[in-house]
Amino acid sequence: MNKYIGVFDSGLGGLTNVKELHKILPGENIIYFGDTGRVPYGTRSDDIIIKYTLQDLRFLSSFPLKAIVVACGTVSSVALDKVKDKVNVPIIGVVEPTCKKAISITKNGKIGIIGTEGTIKSGSYKNKILKERADFEIFENACPLFVPLVENGYFNSEATKIIANDYLFLLKEKGVDTLILGCTHYPLLTDVIKDIMGDGVSLISPGVETAVYTKDLLEREGIINLANKQGETKYYVSDSTKKFSYLASMFLNEKITGTGEKINIEEW
Amino acid sequence: MNKYIGVFDSGLGGLTNVKELHKILPGENIIYFGDTGRVPYGTRSDDIIIKYTLQDLRFLSSFPLKAIVVACGTVSSVALDKVKDKVNVPIIGVVEPTCKKAISITKNGKIGIIGTEGTIKSGSYKNKILKERADFEIFENACPLFVPLVENGYFNSEATKIIANDYLFLLKEKGVDTLILGCTHYPLLTDVIKDIMGDGVSLISPGVETAVYTKDLLEREGIINLANKQGETKYYVSDSTKKFSYLASMFLNEKITGTGEKINIEEW
Repeated sequence: MNKYIGVFDSGLGGLTNVKELHKILPGENIIYFGDTGRVPYGTRSDDIIIKYTLQDLRFLSSFPLKAIVVACGTVSSVALDKVKDKVNVPIIGVVEPTCKKAISITKNGKIGIIGTEGTIKSGSYKNKILKERADFEIFENACPLFVPLVENGYFNSEATKIIANDYLFLLKEKGVDTLILGCTHYPLLTDVIKDIMGDGVSLISPGVETAVYTKDLLEREGIINLANKQGETKYYVSDSTKKFSYLASMFLNEKITGTGEKINIEEW
Repeated sequence: MNKYIGVFDSGLGGLTNVKELHKILPGENIIYFGDTGRVPYGTRSDDIIIKYTLQDLRFLSSFPLKAIVVACGTVSSVALDKVKDKVNVPIIGVVEPTCKKAISITKNGKIGIIGTEGTIKSGSYKNKILKERADFEIFENACPLFVPLVENGYFNSEATKIIANDYLFLLKEKGVDTLILGCTHYPLLTDVIKDIMGDGVSLISPGVETAVYTKDLLEREGIINLANKQGETKYYVSDSTKKFSYLASMFLNEKITGTGEKINIEEW
């Protein structure tokens, strides 16, 4: 049987990762879990994030899995090292693939990182890059209003431009040539961010890099599904949301109907 | 012994109610619980909101109480009627006092209501007003970006003005002369909202009206504490937050240090 790739996130933003997996691994079956009943993780304490992550992993592990993708930047940053030995399949966070890409493409060694407060405070992207390249300069900023702006459809509003400028002008002034969009939602603000940062700055999307990394891993392990038939994707959430089809369609960039199947994550 | 007034909210916004209670009931002892580990409630399903509310009430009831104030607009709207017989002290939501005030001061019978999506969808303010005055006209709008804007200190930013105008221009066009700020956070945007709505529109803050209502109730029941001595206020939260002192100081409009005592609300 063709096992699933499990993907989870604090909410529905991790569907931007599923979108990229669909593109480059169309034959794979995917189980997606969005912890919509307890979103957001980014503002919570490490203890709570680890507890929630273990529950998310236990739920996903009730399916036959070949790999797990942690789409959540906060979980990848705060909990991944502490939970990875609790599952018996490869578990891929967004931090490592994204940092590898940033290191490989920067020309001036000045890398910017934006993310939720939790991700930035954890220093995970920064530490990963500096471990490989201590000579690089890293400039970071948390952008806490980007998630609500995206979820309310404020992609290209003048308000979004003002707020984005508040968040980004210092990184621009520092002369970064590479900017990590360290949160699932931020790629949806690519136009605004690109306008502010200018064409000379490469924007790195963790969703894209993680999908590429996942494909490489499945190939290496000889468990990639190259069938022509489109794989199936199942969506689970921890709280029903009438906005599911709106948000899921937005993040997947394709029309999705239905509400996702609701599970009680606190029981796991 | 002088019993406590229990106040709870999904997060720290309910401290705007505590601020008003401090003003007009300075002698009362207060227990505040902010469910910061599970904030926000406004986007969750009714079932989850009721479950969380019962846990919040069980925690507060572990103290000797004289009354409970539900500072959360979402809980007041969705859960109050379903849980009020679970406690043996008076329980005061924000909806009734606020609607009474709005009805008493409108001159043209056109009342605007803004709040979270949950509050607006529940129709609680609207239904309450129309039950008393079926001849009134009600105009509503959810303002989902106001909470994150406030929590990130965007009180008077140009971005906040643009977003506030998106939310309010239709209510203004309809000619409301009274506007209910149906969420704990919104009174902190009073300047921006007043600028858009104009001087002719009265803004009603549920925190103020609920405090007045609570004082009346304590007087009526003969359990008001008129001691000159300042009462004590204890703060409990369900997740530690480094932003506690920043946010608590902002909502209380006075300098607060410390982090609030953390409890595990899921055990209640």
